[in-house]
Amino acid sequence: AGAAPGHADVAPVLLALILILAGARLGGALFERFGQPAVLGELCAGILIGNLGLLGFHQLDSLRDMPGVDMLAQIGVVFLLFEVGLESDVEKMRAVGASSLLVATLGVVAPSLLGWGVAKLYFPHESEFIHAFVGATLCATSVGITARVLSDLKKVDSKEGQIILGAAVIDDVMGLVVLAIVAGIIESVNRGTDFSALSVVWIVLKALVFLAGALWIGRVLSPHAFKLASRLRGQGLLLTTALMFCFGLAYLAAVIGLAPIVGAFAAGLILDPVHYREFTERGEHRLDELMKPIATLLVPIFFVLMGMRVDLRVFGNTAILGFAGVLTLAAIAGKQVCSLGVLEKGVDRLAVGLGMIPRGEVGLIFAGIGTTLMVRGERVIDDAAFSAVVVMVAITTVVTPPLLVWKLRQGDRPQRPAKA
Amino acid sequence: AGAAPGHADVAPVLLALILILAGARLGGALFERFGQPAVLGELCAGILIGNLGLLGFHQLDSLRDMPGVDMLAQIGVVFLLFEVGLESDVEKMRAVGASSLLVATLGVVAPSLLGWGVAKLYFPHESEFIHAFVGATLCATSVGITARVLSDLKKVDSKEGQIILGAAVIDDVMGLVVLAIVAGIIESVNRGTDFSALSVVWIVLKALVFLAGALWIGRVLSPHAFKLASRLRGQGLLLTTALMFCFGLAYLAAVIGLAPIVGAFAAGLILDPVHYREFTERGEHRLDELMKPIATLLVPIFFVLMGMRVDLRVFGNTAILGFAGVLTLAAIAGKQVCSLGVLEKGVDRLAVGLGMIPRGEVGLIFAGIGTTLMVRGERVIDDAAFSAVVVMVAITTVVTPPLLVWKLRQGDRPQRPAKA
Repeated sequence: AGAAPGHADVAPVLLALILILAGARLGGALFERFGQPAVLGELCAGILIGNLGLLGFHQLDSLRDMPGVDMLAQIGVVFLLFEVGLESDVEKMRAVGASSLLVATLGVVAPSLLGWGVAKLYFPHESEFIHAFVGATLCATSVGITARVLSDLKKVDSKEGQIILGAAVIDDVMGLVVLAIVAGIIESVNRGTDFSALSVVWIVLKALVFLAGALWIGRVLSPHAFKLASRLRGQGLLLTTALMFCFGLAYLAAVIGLAPIVGAFAAGLILDPVHYREFTERGEHRLDELMKPIATLLVPIFFVLMGMRVDLRVFGNTAILGFAGVLTLAAIAGKQVCSLGVLEKGVDRLAVGLGMIPRGEVGLIFAGIGTTLMVRGERVIDDAAFSAVVVMVAITTVVTPPLLVWKLRQGDRPQRPAKA
Repeated sequence: AGAAPGHADVAPVLLALILILAGARLGGALFERFGQPAVLGELCAGILIGNLGLLGFHQLDSLRDMPGVDMLAQIGVVFLLFEVGLESDVEKMRAVGASSLLVATLGVVAPSLLGWGVAKLYFPHESEFIHAFVGATLCATSVGITARVLSDLKKVDSKEGQIILGAAVIDDVMGLVVLAIVAGIIESVNRGTDFSALSVVWIVLKALVFLAGALWIGRVLSPHAFKLASRLRGQGLLLTTALMFCFGLAYLAAVIGLAPIVGAFAAGLILDPVHYREFTERGEHRLDELMKPIATLLVPIFFVLMGMRVDLRVFGNTAILGFAGVLTLAAIAGKQVCSLGVLEKGVDRLAVGLGMIPRGEVGLIFAGIGTTLMVRGERVIDDAAFSAVVVMVAITTVVTPPLLVWKLRQGDRPQRPAKA
């Protein structure tokens, strides 16, 4: 049979979903049996599925680049950050706000400088702009991995968790500013004009207005919106309204150039699950409980796909691997400076530093933009530099869960018995 | 900001989802307030959103053809048929099996002949093949709309509901055979060879093996698979295993050329929700309850999108409209012959006939294949014929819910008080 005009072919996506869900379930169960978080098993299952091409299963290579699966994965990570936002406590986040700001600032400055230096050492004859851009790709933490580990270990609500989550949101805003500045300077050089500081101010302003606006909506508008919605009848009222709110803030974040997950996290933060519950013939339903089945379906798709995008063949290219290794060390070491930003006593500083390591899709997006920018006739990020960034993203993504589990569990031992 | 390679842009999809969910919620609530099923409100909201271009909001036109939204809608209708399958009772379906077979047979033969005749009357100078193909586009019932109305009215479990659902599955298989025969004959004419009856036998065989295989899996394999899965630990075990089973049968159906929703329905039929439940710290969860939040998110996307694809401008073209009107009458009248196939006493025959009316995406897929087939240098389905099929699909989709509600509620009055 064929497809009607405008119809996407759903069959290959169904096949991909079966493989991804099976991999997620088996990988997650295996790792949980050995006391590791499910997310690490999902990543490993993804690496396995994504590299079956090396064993001759080339027909599976297309799974990695299916737009339909990628879309579901991106919606999945939006739901994950919404859930994590629901689990977060606004008061607690505010209490550690100063630490978050300091952690974020150190976590943007230190890796950027280290990355700049590494690029300068490795490619002394390339232009200064290329060194600066490589540094910029190291600055933004991708909070998805850490948020999931915190959630798997039920640590979202801990001081460490709240500092990391707050810092990751601020960090995303700062990363946006760094990217805008570097890209703006490169553009000015190409045009032969001076770089306007005004455009930086404009970007910072947009980001601040978004965050302030989100908080204002949370305080003032959302109770009215939900009261209005509760006058409408029909099934699934609470869930639909909450999802629209989540999608709305995620969309607004994307419009002003932030990652959609930042908006989704803000939406979750604003909606307090204790107050948002609905009573039906089947009993009482809390918003976070209603989110669980959707998250069970969509969240693992993101993590398996992240694993699938780790191309093991890159590790066979020693030329790329040398630079990639140093870049990865700079990425990890740079974020450890974050731990100096923690002001509270009794907080596990190393855990905060480890939690800030993953670069995930944000680093890839930066590098992707770099490949589209030209300075004096050459690409700012060439194929070798892009591969190095991919390796850096892969390693920071995969090493964070075990390191973070080890550190957070260590802190648990004196207080409570280890989980079976 | 830009996107990394292989990344789909999620922001426009988020915007589309906000509009679709808002439309679904408002439309559904409005129609429920007036005692109508939510699905009708979702369709109307879709027609409104999809035709805002007529009022100058042309930027919304792109929403209709977004592959990401279409993918979510198709997964949504897969979930709907899975849910309806869960609500169906295999024993009850088997009890009315003979009626279903007869209803399906009459429902394929009568509309095909009527459509053939109408095309012959309207286009006497076109080839016989074109008349036959137009007839074929009328044969397959698209069960999504009817299933949703039955579900909204809590009538899935009724005799009428079970006859319609059984007939729709058989009907899909028969439609496949009719399509294969007509397309096969046209191909043979183009090649100047004889049409091989063997290929028809092959298609019928594939379909029968699928249905028999699905039932065999249900009886023999699925309890073992779920027992195996229950040894794995981790959250959401039951749901993930059930979803993989649903996607698996939907994929198998697609592979042999059936609609994926037929496979999803079979999967739901096999899994009995009474036996599939899981116990967690949050209490007992039945499979059908775990499905609800996912369905709340995805199912309305399908119905709003179906509404959005109704292009009201077609109703301004009187030349197309004449043929479209006659074709629609043939489509509706043809399926009323179905009611003669009901063998049981005390069954509302008219309700069965009305429930078989919608053609939905199956008719569009048939017509789409027709536009790609050539016979003696001309397209089997040209633009005018395709538009007529689109109008027929739109009208049969929109008229079914109110007619079915009116008929099924009529039967209720003597037995129980009308719902508030």
